[in-house]
Order: sequence, then structure tokens, then C-alpha cells
Amino acid sequence: MADRLTGGDSSLLRRINAAVTLRALRDGQSVTLTQLVGDTGLSRPTVEGVIEGLVESGLVAEVEPAQQEAGRQRGRPARWFRFRAEAGHVLGIEVGVHDIRVILADLAGDVLATHAKEADETLDAEERLGVVRSTVAEVLRKAGVSRDSLWSVAVGTPGIVDRDGTVRLGTAMPGWTGLDLGARLRRSFRCPVVIENDANLAAIAEHWKGAAVGKGDVVFVMAGLSPGAGSLIGGRLHRGFGGAAGEIGALHLLGQEATPERLLSTTGKPLDPLDEAAVARVLRLAREGDEVARVATDRFLRRLVHDVTALVLALDPELVVVGGWAAGLDGVLEPLREQLSLYTLRAPEVALAALGSEVVAMGALRVGLDHVEEQLFTVDPPPAR
Amino acid sequence: MADRLTGGDSSLLRRINAAVTLRALRDGQSVTLTQLVGDTGLSRPTVEGVIEGLVESGLVAEVEPAQQEAGRQRGRPARWFRFRAEAGHVLGIEVGVHDIRVILADLAGDVLATHAKEADETLDAEERLGVVRSTVAEVLRKAGVSRDSLWSVAVGTPGIVDRDGTVRLGTAMPGWTGLDLGARLRRSFRCPVVIENDANLAAIAEHWKGAAVGKGDVVFVMAGLSPGAGSLIGGRLHRGFGGAAGEIGALHLLGQEATPERLLSTTGKPLDPLDEAAVARVLRLAREGDEVARVATDRFLRRLVHDVTALVLALDPELVVVGGWAAGLDGVLEPLREQLSLYTLRAPEVALAALGSEVVAMGALRVGLDHVEEQLFTVDPPPAR
Repeated sequence: MADRLTGGDSSLLRRINAAVTLRALRDGQSVTLTQLVGDTGLSRPTVEGVIEGLVESGLVAEVEPAQQEAGRQRGRPARWFRFRAEAGHVLGIEVGVHDIRVILADLAGDVLATHAKEADETLDAEERLGVVRSTVAEVLRKAGVSRDSLWSVAVGTPGIVDRDGTVRLGTAMPGWTGLDLGARLRRSFRCPVVIENDANLAAIAEHWKGAAVGKGDVVFVMAGLSPGAGSLIGGRLHRGFGGAAGEIGALHLLGQEATPERLLSTTGKPLDPLDEAAVARVLRLAREGDEVARVATDRFLRRLVHDVTALVLALDPELVVVGGWAAGLDGVLEPLREQLSLYTLRAPEVALAALGSEVVAMGALRVGLDHVEEQLFTVDPPPAR
Repeated sequence: MADRLTGGDSSLLRRINAAVTLRALRDGQSVTLTQLVGDTGLSRPTVEGVIEGLVESGLVAEVEPAQQEAGRQRGRPARWFRFRAEAGHVLGIEVGVHDIRVILADLAGDVLATHAKEADETLDAEERLGVVRSTVAEVLRKAGVSRDSLWSVAVGTPGIVDRDGTVRLGTAMPGWTGLDLGARLRRSFRCPVVIENDANLAAIAEHWKGAAVGKGDVVFVMAGLSPGAGSLIGGRLHRGFGGAAGEIGALHLLGQEATPERLLSTTGKPLDPLDEAAVARVLRLAREGDEVARVATDRFLRRLVHDVTALVLALDPELVVVGGWAAGLDGVLEPLREQLSLYTLRAPEVALAALGSEVVAMGALRVGLDHVEEQLFTVDPPPAR
């Protein structure tokens, strides 16, 4: 912050005061002016001035005294105020290989509606975007919320995504590599639209409401044929300079080792990574005791454990959260714990992801809310000269 | 910042103003009161009040008008002020396997004296600390600076170092693992003493004055038999939860691959990592065309390139800086660039370290200066309620 300060002038002070007052209002129920004075440490006239501005902007509403003080009639009635979480809305969206999922919440993050549609893995980009648009329309209709009421939209998708929302590499879905997903979706909304890698959003979601609550340095591993990872450092997402941090899926290429698709194959011919049925068949055979399938599954899991260990050595996180379809396999969590305790001085905790199929959309919702809170609750000092 | 603000009260404003005024003074030569008013955006009475406090504390001095305005005699003479960089001093120290190096600078970071002593690799911890103490004394004596004038001391050393300054793992030097280096050195100084991993400090130094100036996401690789790495993310050091981030030296253990000491051996018997002469002999033989030595060197370099690539996949930096004795070998930079361009979507730049043998001590000096600047130039808001 000190980098950007030019001086403690009175307009900075006004913005600090507005942010502080909003923060005091946001978390609670209705609050009296007197309570706000106590909570913020500001003077009564200052709080009155700030509140007046916030009521005008629609972010704060005065609550009828009757609602709060039934039966209390002595003296001047206290004035009660509340944060109007319904003043705006946020969308969290997952554009996945098999599902499109949309979550709608108010400015306080309370979920108002959610909707998911299946999408065929063979859909081209146009068709897939069509499903996204109709799912969004369905959620807004369900909740009776106008599109103009959206303050922020965040979207998660597999692949390496630029800061401006272009998919630089997206092999999981047809037509995805090179797609300017941000620009395409911005046509449907008037508010800012952010695109983010799905594993990155899963890390954020697990930190918000899942297995990583309260942990600052977290690696989320999306365990599957093409493992991806998202990392939080000091509670903040680490995207990497080109948005490709955690792309450990390429590790097996070093030293010309076999791909996961080949490792998990029982026929010598690599599996199609999008062919979930074939993957499921190998796993089922292995469970049933088929020797060839068991060897293939072991090979595949050893590779996964190796890749995650490399990531841990590079980042030294406090916690590794494992999600994705391969997370539930028997041979993942324990071998990973053993490997990590062998090769690190202080092995991180290893936990199964706690959030289910909504994890990516929930992470997107959190990113959208962060964007709103940045506007509302952060003091934005004037640029340095 | 918004997290910690409780309200824009007047004491916060006073601190903002003092920090802003000091920053405006620090970078330039002598400055007039009128210039300070312009540079800070503060009112003249405010700047006068702040300057009075800073002169009292010894951080600012009024400059005699005669020095600045010879010949200019009309009107009321302007008042000139300067930052007193000599009000305090900072030490940057490297405690290495073969050298102890100490750099002394003033509060503006201008180097006043530097001194290095050779240390035998077999010295035990007590003997090594003795060399550190005598080198510090020598530097202070050279510069004529009193020990009480030190505001901050930072120390770099190989190994995994706790935040409190305990060496958790330090195999490069006898008696180093488990040593509470922070506590031991704090006995010699009244000011704060910080201990940090040497590769981390090298990353900081190259970012400050070397090959990584202006780059935020940087990996510094200390290339040697036991490669270590330090990473900056967004211009800040990433230590990892347990201070072990970048400890890619353990990667070769995964999959039971051979150690670098074995890879570089020409006899089948692993080299002693501390035996620099043996390492130098293999490298010289390889240069001279000895086939066995050449094969061994190639093996060793392929391993190094592999480890660095794994780190790059995990972190996705903008720039990789390679330092340490192995950085100068022919087979490092080009093969690394090739490997990275094969396995990443956007390969980071690869550069040779620009700072020489002082790189770790320079990084330590920068950390010490950061600590001082945090105290001087940062607004420290009151804790949240």
C-alpha cells in the first residue's frame, strides 16, 4: 500500500471511512448508527455522512424502527441500517467437458439458484457456448433476477487460460484451444467476466468452504488422466506468469516416459482420455482382481503420486487436497502420504476434496464475489506520482 | 490493507503523512519544504509538523541554506532538508561452505564496506560462527561504524531454514542441521537478525541488481551437485510453508533414480559433494575429451535440466536465472532452453546469473534493507477489532 500513497488527503479518508462502514454493516444483521460509531471508531457525524451516501447508492437501507424495537418507546428512537445484499448478484460458472453448471448468489454470497446441464464431450465451441447461455438464462429465470442486476461473472474451464480470458491450450474439448472465451461471454453480460482454469478455481473453493479452510498454502490436485493442479500461496491463487502454474501433466514427457493414457491401458494401445467408459472399465476390472488391469492401475497411480510429489517439492505447501475422479481410488491417498513423508523434511497434510461436483462453479462464484468486494470494501488510494 | 483498517482516524493520518514525507525525501538529494509540499500533496503546515518530528528522531537533517543557494539572496531563504541515510546501518552476511562474506551499507543501501574470509569446509558450527563474528568485527572496524548503529542484520546459508532462524536441514556443513543459527547470532547484535536460505537470497539479489531486474516471477537455480532454488512470485520471495520450497534436490530420489553425486562419478563410486577438487577434475577431463568423464557430465547435466523443468512446470515463472558453479558449464543453458520450449506452452526466459560471488550476501543486504524500510516507510494501521 505504501507504494501507492501520495498523501493522507481528505478524499482518501472519505473512501477509507466508506469502506470501513460497509465492512461493519456487511457481516451483521441490522445495526444502529450508535453501533456503527462504536464498530468503526469513526465519529457520529462522519458515520451519518457515509451512511447517507451509501443509502443513495442503494447499497444500504434504513430499517423501519418498528421491526427492530417493538415495545421500546422511550427516548429518541435509534436508527437501524442494513447492507442490501440484494443490490446486486454474482454468477459462478463451470464450462466442463461433460457438464455446464451455473450458481447465482447475492452480494453477500448467499446462493439463490443453481442449475446444471449435461453437455456431450463432442460438442464444438459454438454448441457448448449455446448450452452455457441457456443454463444462465434458466438460473436467472428460476431466481427471478434480472441480467442487469449482475455485478460480476466468473467462469472455470479446463486448460491454460490467459489473463484476458483466451484459452491458450484446452485439449479436453473440441475447438477450445485458441478460443477467446472471455470476449465471447462478455457479449452476454454488461458486467466484468473473468475466465480461470478449473483446478485453480477448485483450490479456491476448497479454501473457501471445503477441506482447505484456514490453510494458506494449498495445492489442489485434479486427479485424472491428465492431472492438473491449482495452488494457493498465502491464501491467494498462484496462476504463474503465463497462467500455466501446476501443469504437471507434462512431467511424464520429461525423459520420454509413458503417458498416463498408456500407463492405464490394458491393451498396449493408449486410452482415449475422453472415453470415461474405457477408464471405468479398467478400474472395475482391477477391483475385480484382473491382473493386467491391476498392474495398469498401479502404474497409473505411481505416475500420479510422482507428479504430485514433484509439485510439493517445488512449492512446499501446508496441505494437498486431491479431487477429480481418480482421487477416490484406493491407491492414491496413502501412497501419496508415504511418498511425501519419504522425500520431504516436513510432509504436507493430504486430504480428499470435500466439495463435490459443484467445486469448480463454487470457486468461480468466490472469484466473482472477490471482485465485488474489491470494489466495495477496499480502499483504493490515488495512483503514485 | 482494508482488512486491518478500523477507521481513518487522525493518528493513522499522521503516520501516513510521516511515511509519505520520508519516501519523498529518501530518494532525492536535498529538498525544500516547498518541493515536499508539492511531492506529497500534503499541506505546508502538515509537512512542517512532520519534518519537525523527523528531525527530532535523527532521520532528517536541515541543510544549511548557504550550501544550496549560494548567490541567491532575494526573499525569505528556502529551507532545505535531507534524509540522514547515515542514521543507521544494515549488514548482509553469507555463511557459506567455503566463504564467510559480510557487506555493510547505510539506510539508503549504499555499500560502505565489505569483507570475506575463507572457511574450511570441515569447520564445526562453533568455529564457523567464530569466523562470522570476526568478519563482522573487521567490516565494522574498516568502516568506522559502531555496532549499536546497526538496525538490521540478515544472513544467508545453505539448507532449509525455519522462520525463527533454525536450520532444519543443512547437510553441506558439519553441525549445521538443527543449529539455532538465529538465536546464536542474535547474541552478537541488539537489532533484529533474520536467517534465510542462500538460494532464496540469490533470487532476491538478482531481482534487485542482477539478471532479474524488473521481473516479478523468477526462479533462481543454484546449480551444483545438490541443486537448490529460490523463487519470487509477484516480486516477493516464496519460502513455502516449511521454508523448503524449491528443494528440487530430492527429485532424483523419486523413482529411485541415481543421485547427482553418482551421475557425475567416473568410477561408479559417488563423488563427495564437498570435494570440489574431484568435481573439478571430472569437468576438466570432460573438456579435454575423456569419454568416461564426458558421459558422466552429460548424465549429470540431463538430471539438472530435468529438475529445473519440473520446477518450471510447477511455478510457471517469467524467467529462470541459473547460478552456482555448474551454471557456467557448456551443457546447461542451451539444453535447458530446448527442454523448456518442448514441454511448456510459453517457455520462460533462461539467463545466466549476473552477480558474482557476492550474490548471497547482496540478497541478505536487500532483506535487511527491506526490514528497515518496512519500519520507516510503511503505514502500519492499528489492529482490527
